[in-house]
Amino acid sequence: MLPVKIAGLGYCLPDHVVQNAALERELGLAEGWIERVTGIRERRRATQETSAEMAAEAGRMALTHAGLDVGDLDAIVGASTGPQQLIPCTAAFVQRALGAPDGGSACFDVDATCLSFLVGLQVVSHLVAAGVYGTVLLYSSEMSRWSLNPQEPESAVLIGDAAAATVITRTPPGEASAVWRSQVATHSSGADLTAFIGGGTRHHPNDPTTTPAMNLFHMDGPAVFKQATRLAGPFLDSFFDRLGWQRDEVDWVVPHQASGMALKQLTARLGFRPDQLVVNLPTRGNCIAASLPLALAEAVHGGQVQRGQRVLLVGTGAGLSIGALALTY
Amino acid sequence: MLPVKIAGLGYCLPDHVVQNAALERELGLAEGWIERVTGIRERRRATQETSAEMAAEAGRMALTHAGLDVGDLDAIVGASTGPQQLIPCTAAFVQRALGAPDGGSACFDVDATCLSFLVGLQVVSHLVAAGVYGTVLLYSSEMSRWSLNPQEPESAVLIGDAAAATVITRTPPGEASAVWRSQVATHSSGADLTAFIGGGTRHHPNDPTTTPAMNLFHMDGPAVFKQATRLAGPFLDSFFDRLGWQRDEVDWVVPHQASGMALKQLTARLGFRPDQLVVNLPTRGNCIAASLPLALAEAVHGGQVQRGQRVLLVGTGAGLSIGALALTY
Repeated sequence: MLPVKIAGLGYCLPDHVVQNAALERELGLAEGWIERVTGIRERRRATQETSAEMAAEAGRMALTHAGLDVGDLDAIVGASTGPQQLIPCTAAFVQRALGAPDGGSACFDVDATCLSFLVGLQVVSHLVAAGVYGTVLLYSSEMSRWSLNPQEPESAVLIGDAAAATVITRTPPGEASAVWRSQVATHSSGADLTAFIGGGTRHHPNDPTTTPAMNLFHMDGPAVFKQATRLAGPFLDSFFDRLGWQRDEVDWVVPHQASGMALKQLTARLGFRPDQLVVNLPTRGNCIAASLPLALAEAVHGGQVQRGQRVLLVGTGAGLSIGALALTY
Repeated sequence: MLPVKIAGLGYCLPDHVVQNAALERELGLAEGWIERVTGIRERRRATQETSAEMAAEAGRMALTHAGLDVGDLDAIVGASTGPQQLIPCTAAFVQRALGAPDGGSACFDVDATCLSFLVGLQVVSHLVAAGVYGTVLLYSSEMSRWSLNPQEPESAVLIGDAAAATVITRTPPGEASAVWRSQVATHSSGADLTAFIGGGTRHHPNDPTTTPAMNLFHMDGPAVFKQATRLAGPFLDSFFDRLGWQRDEVDWVVPHQASGMALKQLTARLGFRPDQLVVNLPTRGNCIAASLPLALAEAVHGGQVQRGQRVLLVGTGAGLSIGALALTY
């Protein structure tokens, strides 16, 4: 058990709302197809916002919520899939966008695609518990505009843009907040099922053999769903065994909002009740790494998740990775 | 003090050696300019190797050195600047390239440009000390071929390609290995001094306004040197104060091999003796994130750094970040 507290949460939603009807016209899909297949009604798209600005807006809200100031931050940890630029890490630009003191915080990024926030919280919890950093801003910020694949409407309609941020501190004496257990497993047999093969050394933007199609998001949805469904049950059994909780002792399950079908598995096959689930997929879509902290932040600010309640963060991501983290909020 | 041990180290050097003479002809530089200005005689360049294959080769050497097997790995943590591809994280491809068991390890990447390994070791040390993961492969793998900027010979001649890997475990009872302290500070006032502005959401490869020049490495060497030199003294004073060691009690200083001038500061202004320094810059160049673990791995395998000795990892990186980590090897 780590005496670590999510002291504040915040989020930033780009102003521009994309409704299904517009997307269905653009992608040549039948009217009503998107909501029927994915459960999503609308999603946001960043237009003028930058990744760091969205993160900073979410960060300011999280700091206000925590009653803390940018000057209190000892570290800023980015937990997103896409950086703002390759060098330096995006967290450095968030320090600047926040107006946080130069040299006052350590900035670095953690990447595990859709599980970046969960892995980031695992990492930050241990650093805070050990006293390396006292107050950490852990954020995810995603914008996908140029990466959406019009040849793959199943994924293109899923993705939404957002940023979400948390302020992580040591739990003050007498409070119940804690991080109880985290567990992540990567199955690289599924590494090609969710991919963006450009953007790195394999297909560098300046390599003349790199094509625009390589710089688009690709997901073999049915294959991911099949592998994730096969792995999730045994993974959660092992997680709860070691955690020592029963599934029905969890007050809120905050899943990565991968898709409507993925969320349904949590109640249909994985042992949770519908009333345990935090769901924002219909209005936010799948916001990649920002999905999980956005769902948590909205659930806290909306009054669902209360102090002292038991929360399970859970999801799968490209890799294929599967992860879970149990905490008392 | 964390009871954490670097149980094994390995590295991978691409076969292709680039001598100064060839670079001087290519870039229109005077004969002898490169060695005189940078202290570098030659560097390696990856040609056919992939980032993950180089990491896996370094990883196999590190596992052999540690007397462990791929089946022992509980986590694989990438600590490089450039991913192999944007999604999924490169560590997942290293799991696959190693033939490590599917689902047997958690894979994620940590990025702090040239300080990625130092930050990765900070993170991994705490996860291992807390028992989250028992055996972790922490690696850096860099290849820069398409990113070198021919308009900027000062940086283009500096960079070398390499991978280096470490196996991190808990220290067995009775052994002296430990991680004593780590400290990182980011000064985002210098975020634009070392940059690669493409490769992310700011200048996406498919955005028609993105130019090839945006996908090249840029460094304002004199400005970086000035800022780093100004910050390093007070940073190290604060680090050693909290660590409780004197500078001359360090057996080996393993610096990020940023440049000949940067290395000279360690003895000229920062209080270390020349015989404390581990230097591989003349034959390896600046291997970005792989520079620091490569220098350490070569020093261990070359018989310089011995078990029980006190080692300081130190460097600056894009951000501008400055970091130090003290350990007993």
